[in-house]
Amino acid sequence: MARSTRVPVLRRLHALLPAGRILAEEQHLAAYESDALTAYRNRPLAVAVPETADEVIALVRFCRDEGLPFVARGSGTSLSGGSLPLVNGIVIALNRLNRILKLDPAQRIAVVEPGVINLHVTAAAAPHGLHYAPDPSSQPICTIGGNVAFNAGGAHCLKYGMTSNHVLGLKAVLATGEVVEFGGAGRDQVGPDWTGLFVGNEGLFGIALEVTLQLLPRAECYHTVLAGYATIEQAGDAVAAIIASGLLPGAIEIMDALALEAAVAAVHAEYPPGCEAVLIVELEGPREAVAADRGRLDAIIAESRPVEARPARDAAERLAIWKGRKSAFSAVGRLSPDFIVQDGVVPRRRLGEALRHIDEWSREMGLRCANVFHAGDGNLHPLILYDGRVPGALEQAEALAGRILRMCVEMGGSITGEHGVGVEKRDHLATMFSADEIDCMQRLRAAFDPRLVANPGKMFAEAGAPALTQHGLHPLERAGVISRE
Amino acid sequence: MARSTRVPVLRRLHALLPAGRILAEEQHLAAYESDALTAYRNRPLAVAVPETADEVIALVRFCRDEGLPFVARGSGTSLSGGSLPLVNGIVIALNRLNRILKLDPAQRIAVVEPGVINLHVTAAAAPHGLHYAPDPSSQPICTIGGNVAFNAGGAHCLKYGMTSNHVLGLKAVLATGEVVEFGGAGRDQVGPDWTGLFVGNEGLFGIALEVTLQLLPRAECYHTVLAGYATIEQAGDAVAAIIASGLLPGAIEIMDALALEAAVAAVHAEYPPGCEAVLIVELEGPREAVAADRGRLDAIIAESRPVEARPARDAAERLAIWKGRKSAFSAVGRLSPDFIVQDGVVPRRRLGEALRHIDEWSREMGLRCANVFHAGDGNLHPLILYDGRVPGALEQAEALAGRILRMCVEMGGSITGEHGVGVEKRDHLATMFSADEIDCMQRLRAAFDPRLVANPGKMFAEAGAPALTQHGLHPLERAGVISRE
Repeated sequence: MARSTRVPVLRRLHALLPAGRILAEEQHLAAYESDALTAYRNRPLAVAVPETADEVIALVRFCRDEGLPFVARGSGTSLSGGSLPLVNGIVIALNRLNRILKLDPAQRIAVVEPGVINLHVTAAAAPHGLHYAPDPSSQPICTIGGNVAFNAGGAHCLKYGMTSNHVLGLKAVLATGEVVEFGGAGRDQVGPDWTGLFVGNEGLFGIALEVTLQLLPRAECYHTVLAGYATIEQAGDAVAAIIASGLLPGAIEIMDALALEAAVAAVHAEYPPGCEAVLIVELEGPREAVAADRGRLDAIIAESRPVEARPARDAAERLAIWKGRKSAFSAVGRLSPDFIVQDGVVPRRRLGEALRHIDEWSREMGLRCANVFHAGDGNLHPLILYDGRVPGALEQAEALAGRILRMCVEMGGSITGEHGVGVEKRDHLATMFSADEIDCMQRLRAAFDPRLVANPGKMFAEAGAPALTQHGLHPLERAGVISRE
Repeated sequence: MARSTRVPVLRRLHALLPAGRILAEEQHLAAYESDALTAYRNRPLAVAVPETADEVIALVRFCRDEGLPFVARGSGTSLSGGSLPLVNGIVIALNRLNRILKLDPAQRIAVVEPGVINLHVTAAAAPHGLHYAPDPSSQPICTIGGNVAFNAGGAHCLKYGMTSNHVLGLKAVLATGEVVEFGGAGRDQVGPDWTGLFVGNEGLFGIALEVTLQLLPRAECYHTVLAGYATIEQAGDAVAAIIASGLLPGAIEIMDALALEAAVAAVHAEYPPGCEAVLIVELEGPREAVAADRGRLDAIIAESRPVEARPARDAAERLAIWKGRKSAFSAVGRLSPDFIVQDGVVPRRRLGEALRHIDEWSREMGLRCANVFHAGDGNLHPLILYDGRVPGALEQAEALAGRILRMCVEMGGSITGEHGVGVEKRDHLATMFSADEIDCMQRLRAAFDPRLVANPGKMFAEAGAPALTQHGLHPLERAGVISRE
């Protein structure tokens, strides 16, 4: 867009919100040019900071009329580049729409604005003995709007499901400018699941304005075991044995040697010495149910021949176990200037095989790769370490990431478990879906956004675009839609 | 369609399937002209009986090319007219696609064709200690394809959710003729929930060819209580107390006096004498959990002052309780030549109020109305009795049904809990949704079916059409799309 046409658009944008809530100065834009997928950066035209749903609606209608691309942003914790700004587009920052509009313990629901922090929902529900179940590692900072857009998961989604299982209804402004409400406190679905269709839309359909969340009773008690193993295969076998037993733990997580090293360095976590992998299994629920399952779990773990197994003896020990796990992503950042987190899924029974391949390929390509993952779901999170200052290093890391994703699909899994497609895995969509399937998805998207102004360039690859992992400029880069620093 | 154009269409249709599997003779068509919503009957042009997925695909592509409306049909148990044929359209009868293609106890999944009977899935899974959870009353005869199309529920969906919570993936032929696969044995969702969007489509998007179902471990034990109350309000209050206690029973059902009378006459069920209502509550799950909850449930029921409370002492007594409940719909048929079953939902806490209104309005209009319903979900099933031979009687019954549905929406509930919109509640969609919302739904539908050949006239009312419950001919009747006998 030429400078001359930019000014009028910006001037009209300024008219939509009170002074100081359209940010267009370089120093303000810098804070918004990236999300948690730090490999990509883009400078938007402006950042709008609405404070009410009506202001969001006005902004979306403005973008629709102007054909101006927009991306909604909460805390920018997307690991797939979902909240990466579009060059010459606008960022609609939703952080000030952070009100919990309703909390009804009798109905066990909360109605919240999109900028509410995930953990704040649980904090508000706690006095009533309730909590909001989806628990991504970023839960102290990520927002419900982002959770909805990317159908966030978390360690406990093994037992409780993803965000889509906890969103009962929503009010949204579509990219067409229409305001719609689907679902609600009841679970009644009229026709297809219109509410569920919006969850996971990755910002391509519109912006959620109010989200009705289901709250669940807080678990009455926990039994959390940390077990160290000499090899990661043994840890994987223990997972298979637990699942096969019919037990349904709240969470089953694995961290490998490199992730353990990072957690030790970062949060002084203590792990059994001489372990190549640590398994965390947590039973949770009513006291009687946990008591009944506890013995079975302990026996299965004992049979899996760990180096050491430590059940948490109190709440403090439990929190320490989880602190090590939840800080693993950022902790790995201490080992390397840059990393890519992948998010592929494999059938649980093929976990060991998948980990062997990742290890083999990493060695082959001379890359270090830490594994921290939701083993119970088969949801891998390989963290591929690289140094972005070294020419070609990012491309190498992306090549390994691509190889891992293709393996996931070949094994009957998925390119994403909980981080979404975003800009990062856009070119892998066709690995999983046929042309007809993608065409059908695109038609559905167009029903929400015929002008393609809502987060364009995400989720769907442009026709004929080479893989992002290939060398040279991506067509969207050449077109100035995305750029790399 | 004029007779002259009919013949060539039929002749070409005959060429698609082997002899004997396109039925167009009057005596064959008669069997297909209605579903469980017996108030409406239509004579289709022909009934096609495919035996393979490829034949279904060929039929759908033929209909697409010809602009010929089609409706897929399983056992025709739809209570909303969802499988009512369209005049001059074709019925695609899926009963011969009844193979269980895969049953994997380790992954706890079954992959089935659409014509498989619901109960047959559980029968096949039983040797592995598994079952398929959704249990509509029609489960011994209804098919998975119909369950998927209408997102069927059942008594146990209070605890386990609807069909949409148990469909992990599907392969379908869309009304465009495209064959797509979404979801699968894993629960990984890439972008929006494309699988979930198909569930509940009421036959408007296409036809499911293979459905991947989740299987759950069979409950280890049950505690089933039948309690009789002097008034239906007392039964409603007992439901509120159970829910408020935090217990999550598998099912909470209520039958009123008229339904009890029918069940006694039909299956010789025995109920405590002098009761206006019977409450059925079933705890189920692992032995320890049921044992722990049982005392609390019994205490709550005792406090609710029933005339009598009878816990089932063995499996035979449990089955007898459920036999009475599940036969109630057909049993009511003995009390009256015709009835309309409604399917509205109200917030649970307003159940008593809703039932009082229904009772009051029935008396006012001189109609008898039996209530058999999923009290735990607030899902009412008023059965409005009428004699279709009496002029005006159907219209009277529909007027009461409409009044009940409007009350449900005003109370913050829904026009349908599990039966779907179909042809019956089509004109009530606008009571619940705004014009923008319905427009958005229509655009999504068009993404699957741009030519509107898949079950047209269902779910969505034609623009400006008067309510079906009003006197006189519906515009679709005038157009010959639907007819009443």
